[in-house]
Amino acid sequence: MRRALATAVREAVRAGRLAPGTQLPSSRQLAADLGLARNTVADAYADLVAEGWLTAHRGSGTRVADRITPRPILARPTVEPSGTPCYDLIPGNPDLTAFPRTAWLKATRRALAAAPDDALGYGDPRGRPELRAALADHLARARGVYVSPEHILICAGVSHGLQILSRVLAGRGAGNVAVEAYGLRSYSRLLGAAGLQTLLLPLDTHGIDPVPPDGTDAVLLTPAHQFPVGTVLQRDRRMAVVDWARRTGGLVLEDDYDGEFRFDRQPVGALQGLAPECVVYLGTASNTLAPGLRLAWMALPPTLAAEAIAAKGQVDSCEVFGQLTMAEFITSGAYSGHIRAARRRYRDRRDALVAALAQHAPKVRVIGAAAGLHTVLGLLPGTEQQVLQSATRQGLRVAGLSRYRNEPTLNAMADALVVGYGVPSDAAWPQALSALVRALS
Amino acid sequence: MRRALATAVREAVRAGRLAPGTQLPSSRQLAADLGLARNTVADAYADLVAEGWLTAHRGSGTRVADRITPRPILARPTVEPSGTPCYDLIPGNPDLTAFPRTAWLKATRRALAAAPDDALGYGDPRGRPELRAALADHLARARGVYVSPEHILICAGVSHGLQILSRVLAGRGAGNVAVEAYGLRSYSRLLGAAGLQTLLLPLDTHGIDPVPPDGTDAVLLTPAHQFPVGTVLQRDRRMAVVDWARRTGGLVLEDDYDGEFRFDRQPVGALQGLAPECVVYLGTASNTLAPGLRLAWMALPPTLAAEAIAAKGQVDSCEVFGQLTMAEFITSGAYSGHIRAARRRYRDRRDALVAALAQHAPKVRVIGAAAGLHTVLGLLPGTEQQVLQSATRQGLRVAGLSRYRNEPTLNAMADALVVGYGVPSDAAWPQALSALVRALS
Repeated sequence: MRRALATAVREAVRAGRLAPGTQLPSSRQLAADLGLARNTVADAYADLVAEGWLTAHRGSGTRVADRITPRPILARPTVEPSGTPCYDLIPGNPDLTAFPRTAWLKATRRALAAAPDDALGYGDPRGRPELRAALADHLARARGVYVSPEHILICAGVSHGLQILSRVLAGRGAGNVAVEAYGLRSYSRLLGAAGLQTLLLPLDTHGIDPVPPDGTDAVLLTPAHQFPVGTVLQRDRRMAVVDWARRTGGLVLEDDYDGEFRFDRQPVGALQGLAPECVVYLGTASNTLAPGLRLAWMALPPTLAAEAIAAKGQVDSCEVFGQLTMAEFITSGAYSGHIRAARRRYRDRRDALVAALAQHAPKVRVIGAAAGLHTVLGLLPGTEQQVLQSATRQGLRVAGLSRYRNEPTLNAMADALVVGYGVPSDAAWPQALSALVRALS
Repeated sequence: MRRALATAVREAVRAGRLAPGTQLPSSRQLAADLGLARNTVADAYADLVAEGWLTAHRGSGTRVADRITPRPILARPTVEPSGTPCYDLIPGNPDLTAFPRTAWLKATRRALAAAPDDALGYGDPRGRPELRAALADHLARARGVYVSPEHILICAGVSHGLQILSRVLAGRGAGNVAVEAYGLRSYSRLLGAAGLQTLLLPLDTHGIDPVPPDGTDAVLLTPAHQFPVGTVLQRDRRMAVVDWARRTGGLVLEDDYDGEFRFDRQPVGALQGLAPECVVYLGTASNTLAPGLRLAWMALPPTLAAEAIAAKGQVDSCEVFGQLTMAEFITSGAYSGHIRAARRRYRDRRDALVAALAQHAPKVRVIGAAAGLHTVLGLLPGTEQQVLQSATRQGLRVAGLSRYRNEPTLNAMADALVVGYGVPSDAAWPQALSALVRALS
């Protein structure tokens, strides 16, 4: 009652029903009026005096404090209708309807039961040891990554990892980072915000030329599946950039965002495995499970580990149950099983896309390896905008390749669409594909 | 088999058993030796060539690439024995053995079942709307906070929130922030790292004087329970700092780290409720539940919201299931119930501490309000170091007040211990208390 009365008076003051300076009834009188114990009213008054809502002076009794400014009662924000069209083909999300909720909950139950109490405290800035150990094994098996758990750093996404690395580079006095001619502009912006200058790695008929000019401090690459063009870094270029790194002391940042998804052969192992001393491997659960988990990981060269840990901060910034659940999910084999199922799902979608285009839009070239959650469709020169418009008319959200060009003037590829086939649900995919074919034919 | 063979060869090269330049048997020959299909061997060779481990040249056959440097097989890191004494009385953690695992798992199950698919994608940088709506209600009821959900920002801890706010302040050209004479030095370091100069708010017999010199851009306060001294900001000083903020346009950062835990009366409501337009309220689940959740929240003045959201970054950096679980935990009433139980637990511990000291160490003064997860014990002048040493001999980890003095030379209080009674388990607490009493008497 004391609390309810205090809340009622506070709200009355806030709403302006009790104006500043207003004299309140004495606690005895109000108690009588409300049929309350006098102490209850006196205590409620005392609470509000301590908080500054009321003033109490001997003689003048209890008044509403002068400096209170009345405010409207807050209304819930109205949810603005989402203006998204029916089918989203922008790359960046996996099929979120296929998230393994049951298996994830099971892993959470196990992880919660097994977690030591101190796991709930401020954690090791590198992340939970259970997860780092599980990842070291998984990455060695699945991606040929060569790292020991103490050199793995858990982060809340690849962007978070790049933020940490750009702080490390800036701390080392590094001035520039080379990025691929096509890629996520948000990454270039992020590096720029850290005070690093970004150079561009040109794209030629064999894909990206990964070797930057000597004197470049680091190079950010997507070797397994160039984003978004889709080429795979060739053997000689893999060796060439490793040679560059060893010769100049430069750092290679390997963004392995979708390396698990190769459909025509075994995935090409990570570049990191060839030269763990000069390659930082970045992996993520955003494409294999869901971005909402905010789980990514870096395999660091031992010489970089201490600086990266310091740059991340003193406490682990990643939620602990998600990390423990992921560790359980990996060690139980559920993660590999989920990836196998996802690989089949996305391979079938890509096959259906290729077949439909061959039949209905034979002029459209499918560019890039049979891999990942997106593909690039080469268009006739000068038609990108027009195709985008007809795609919009078909109710599609889809991006043109030009959106991912890091330097609009540099070696522009022919017009093309970047089609993410990961996002639609299994149920929606056939209609999305038909809409795309209509837009292209 | 193909993958297993590739892995075996890769490991042999890595371990140096196959030296650079070594000629490998032809796929036909190796297939015969191993009783495999020739294609399996050829494919495995092809994988390793594509990754750069092997080279294949017409005529010279398949060889180990020249530039490979062998490395030792990685050993698991050995866990270093933790050298912590038996009882931890450093404030900063609640009793982690009392984390409501069963109720939390139940809330996770409900949250996972109810979550819309798109909740698993890249989220609103402010955090999940379910959690922001639940917090707006909870904070209004429990702390008198006046905020609408769209002005709440979820962050991964109060430090994360302060990082965001310091970026906002720096972005506004702010130069300095006033901090309390006693507090967490990590916060002052954090503000300094953002390029802000820190002024000190003096401590007098009534507690902290919260009004900084005009021209100060912001002031960081712990009004409900000064950390670590334990005083409660008095009514007139609450109004004075609000007046300062309104007069000068300065910002008040209210760190309400343990405002839920008041034992002798209703908690004093948040300062933010008095002046939502110039106070940023910071709350956290670290003391009510566990730091490992990495869940904290800011109630922002509407005029600050856009800048703070931009400073946090484009995607929500906080794991989604933890946010959805917390929302379910709050709306189901489990959170309030857990806080009530925790309040009883910590009140009983504090009462036992006060009683034991009165009986066995009457010279020790208990300083500060009956609140929170720690208290300050005033010692005879010049005895702090000596008491700390005898505490260590008793197997206690405990801090002296001097550890929290932001400016060693400024208005030093008498020697004192800061005793966190939150950390030990219910089972360990009686022994921890006896050890403390022995150290003090």
